[in-house]
Amino acid sequence: MEFSSKLLEKAVNEVSQLPGIGKRTALRLVLHLLKQPKEQTYRLSSSLNRLTEEIKTCKKCHNISDTDVCEICANPHRNEALVCVVEDVRDVMAIENTMQYKGLYHVLNGKISPIEGVGPQHLNIGSLVTKVKEGGVEEVIFALSSTIEGDTTIFYIRKQLTPFSVLTSTIARGIAVGDELEYADEVTLGRSIANRVLLEPSL
Amino acid sequence: MEFSSKLLEKAVNEVSQLPGIGKRTALRLVLHLLKQPKEQTYRLSSSLNRLTEEIKTCKKCHNISDTDVCEICANPHRNEALVCVVEDVRDVMAIENTMQYKGLYHVLNGKISPIEGVGPQHLNIGSLVTKVKEGGVEEVIFALSSTIEGDTTIFYIRKQLTPFSVLTSTIARGIAVGDELEYADEVTLGRSIANRVLLEPSL
Repeated sequence: MEFSSKLLEKAVNEVSQLPGIGKRTALRLVLHLLKQPKEQTYRLSSSLNRLTEEIKTCKKCHNISDTDVCEICANPHRNEALVCVVEDVRDVMAIENTMQYKGLYHVLNGKISPIEGVGPQHLNIGSLVTKVKEGGVEEVIFALSSTIEGDTTIFYIRKQLTPFSVLTSTIARGIAVGDELEYADEVTLGRSIANRVLLEPSL
Repeated sequence: MEFSSKLLEKAVNEVSQLPGIGKRTALRLVLHLLKQPKEQTYRLSSSLNRLTEEIKTCKKCHNISDTDVCEICANPHRNEALVCVVEDVRDVMAIENTMQYKGLYHVLNGKISPIEGVGPQHLNIGSLVTKVKEGGVEEVIFALSSTIEGDTTIFYIRKQLTPFSVLTSTIARGIAVGDELEYADEVTLGRSIANRVLLEPSL
């Protein structure tokens, strides 16, 4: 791509470092910004700079947070006996959006993946084991992706937790609400039959 | 979307102001940045800020430029008798990438579109007419999109240019190089037959 401006070229190069954004998209975004009032660009860059400088990781659950302990861990109305183990900060947000879960979280920051060179020592597993060891946790719920990496991570963590009397569970897999059976893959459909839910006797 | 961090929420909101980027994509981009070294964020925001502050519009052709007169207009090897009229800065880059054009450009910054409230007075048409009036321009090439708006813009500008002895032309429309005839739309195929190119007599 030929740029008539070095400033433009530099901005496009920086924007195209972001995942899923190529040079063309970056150019479109940057030219869009140039057409907006300057304040929009200043707001964008200062919000990114402030985030980078001031964001913290919750000491207890490793969720990202503005404070040392995140809002969820600091909330006295949450059930401390339940800990939901997730890969990523986004998973916390996804589960929070359901408004169905009132326990705490534990963010691993990834999953065990030998291919990508991620071993248990790279994840927040030690602090989870310590948390369980200290007592008070009754159930650890694994909400990891159902891939080989996710299953390996669950297997590893469950092994670490065997000395302690704590229940472990994983979230249910099955056909999504509203999905057609005929388009579901065999593994999902198989699991949804194996883990069928008994209906309550009719009144 | 529920955010556990105000800083994160603000950054995601700013990023999702960009065209084609929703909240989910913005979140993905921002969380990606947080995983990178801080310097990447600083480089990104400073390149955007510098661009916004220091970028100029070429006095002659309205292309964006680091200097008062852009590299193309300042280049003594370009043919000043040819002026290619385009809608947008990106069109200049697209034509420059072909390396087939050695004339100058004139960036309109849009096209006449009554629906979007864009009239001739919003575009860089006056300066084009002045340029032609001052003499030296032999041909004005319209490289606008072949839509009603593009055609209206060409019609309007040609009318403004009638007092002056200047050739006007538009870029050729036809089947793209490598495209199959059967998949071409009728209008394009029709134009490509009407504007067929005589082959040179075989040697």
